[in-house]
Amino acid sequence: MSSTTTGTTTGTTRMASEIAEQPEAARRTLDHLRPEQDRLREAFAGRRRVLLVARGSSDNAATYGRYLLEVAAGVPAALAAPSVATHYGARLDLSDSLVVSVSQSGATAEIVETQEWARACGAATVAVTNVTGSPLADSADVALVTQAGPELAVPATKTYLTQLVALAVLADALGARPSVADDLDRVPDVVAGLLGTDVSAAAEALAGADRVVVSGRGLLLGTALETALKMEETCLRPVRGYSYADLRHGPISVVGEGLLAVLVAPATGPLAEPMADLVRDLRDRGARALGLGGTADFAGICDLHLPGPDLLETVEPLASIVPAQLMIEQMARRLGLDPDNPRGLAKVTRTDR
Amino acid sequence: MSSTTTGTTTGTTRMASEIAEQPEAARRTLDHLRPEQDRLREAFAGRRRVLLVARGSSDNAATYGRYLLEVAAGVPAALAAPSVATHYGARLDLSDSLVVSVSQSGATAEIVETQEWARACGAATVAVTNVTGSPLADSADVALVTQAGPELAVPATKTYLTQLVALAVLADALGARPSVADDLDRVPDVVAGLLGTDVSAAAEALAGADRVVVSGRGLLLGTALETALKMEETCLRPVRGYSYADLRHGPISVVGEGLLAVLVAPATGPLAEPMADLVRDLRDRGARALGLGGTADFAGICDLHLPGPDLLETVEPLASIVPAQLMIEQMARRLGLDPDNPRGLAKVTRTDR
Repeated sequence: MSSTTTGTTTGTTRMASEIAEQPEAARRTLDHLRPEQDRLREAFAGRRRVLLVARGSSDNAATYGRYLLEVAAGVPAALAAPSVATHYGARLDLSDSLVVSVSQSGATAEIVETQEWARACGAATVAVTNVTGSPLADSADVALVTQAGPELAVPATKTYLTQLVALAVLADALGARPSVADDLDRVPDVVAGLLGTDVSAAAEALAGADRVVVSGRGLLLGTALETALKMEETCLRPVRGYSYADLRHGPISVVGEGLLAVLVAPATGPLAEPMADLVRDLRDRGARALGLGGTADFAGICDLHLPGPDLLETVEPLASIVPAQLMIEQMARRLGLDPDNPRGLAKVTRTDR
Repeated sequence: MSSTTTGTTTGTTRMASEIAEQPEAARRTLDHLRPEQDRLREAFAGRRRVLLVARGSSDNAATYGRYLLEVAAGVPAALAAPSVATHYGARLDLSDSLVVSVSQSGATAEIVETQEWARACGAATVAVTNVTGSPLADSADVALVTQAGPELAVPATKTYLTQLVALAVLADALGARPSVADDLDRVPDVVAGLLGTDVSAAAEALAGADRVVVSGRGLLLGTALETALKMEETCLRPVRGYSYADLRHGPISVVGEGLLAVLVAPATGPLAEPMADLVRDLRDRGARALGLGGTADFAGICDLHLPGPDLLETVEPLASIVPAQLMIEQMARRLGLDPDNPRGLAKVTRTDR
């Protein structure tokens, strides 16, 4: 617990250790799941669409999967609304669908129940979980068991990243074009290269900010949402994640001085330039911009910037989350919180039971 | 403009007038759209799913449409990600889909472009818009033109409510069971009955709250999201809307004293009881609860409560939004803002260009 009081020690929390294990976790997961690609193609045969079922961090992973399937593999994809299954018990014909349920533990009742409902509605089922023998894995047609190893810190890091690997393996199996296979192979090394990112200025700015929002779009929207959720869970601050399109549509009217906007941008692709435009707009309104990744133009106009990975936009989310994780871990310690168990400390401040 | 300075005058803003016009707007829209139901069934013939395209308030209306179609009509439905069309230009096979695009003006470039993309991908198209002859209406297979009349206040009220009417007419055409037709007919009178709701205590509490979140789930999730967005746009305060399931999953760790949680609840159905449980949980954490609608149990445990409509849960959202609109209009005036043009005033405080 000493690291939670000094606010400066690095690398001593479980969360920091688990962030550092991600290159190996990604490599093991890739090696373990690639042989499942034939079975994934068989499960999808004769079906037309993918429906993703998840909650929390897994939902942010599923958001990536949804974009990747549509953009790269040309497969219509959507996120399920679990209450349609668990509360309303709607009878839908899902015989044209592959339903992919994502849950680290594979034991979340809502997700297990929704997978059973999907099967009863005629869907083929794929489980993405970190636990062999979990209810979700055992009852799916194909279980993609990620190889993150046990995760002891409360905030999900390596289990989230390996969920992204599993979804990229799925999209690759269903015909991602251009192929993501080569860049997937490079992910472990690219992640390793980002582990040394100096996040101290970013963590200091975040810890001192009045108000923080996180924004991204498209393939990196899930990364923005996960960055916001992780900051909220780990640092006990309200932080909102937005598609930049939604941010522009109305909420931008509440942007002003005192706001720190974390912007997750791709280095290439059709959203690279619009993200730089967003920085200009937010800064004109008095906000400060902390950029992750993006183009050289984007990096140059942000108030603070952390480098992103050199990968195709389609697999960039597998590494873009890493600098965000590092800065959140450090931000929590600067705030005097234990990143491994922030809600434990929160009990003292009566934000939890 | 005098109403913006007194903070207490009622009924003198355009927003207040337009809220009051909703019974007539709903009636006209119902009468105008019911004859389109055969054409809607023809457009859907041989197709299996509905994809909704929208942004902002229209996106919140589409969220209702999505649940209604799945829960009541048994039609798989999802919200499109416009960037998949507009930025990535993905080629999806949508020949099994009816694509429903929702835009008040019918002229939002992103939505018009996505509708064109959907047609090129093989979808049948339905436009929900308030403007006859708009690009969206003119290029759709079926145009559901809502009859709200011109909306002059910046915050959408009657155009939003009539979008819900249009989506209920669509679900009714596609076979909602039990039928929503009778309750739809009752909506104008029920809305009229809610116009006199005394929202002064709620508006006062909101104007004085440190932090506000809005939560709901299922069929009323869209109402919760719209309440949050409207409060943000009209009152220039950051307000977040959540599915209560998402709120419970992690963000609840940041719930504490000083938070006012606005909870939109159904009077009946499978989510009525869980909403009461949520109130207890939030209050245990030190938050105050402002309830809209719900059961007698729910009303009894909220710190503040506004009555909801007496309608089936499937059409309740068409009236549940009304007390929320009234309280937001009054909240804006209490904050010294002009509800009709909040961003005009905002220029002075440099939150806008």
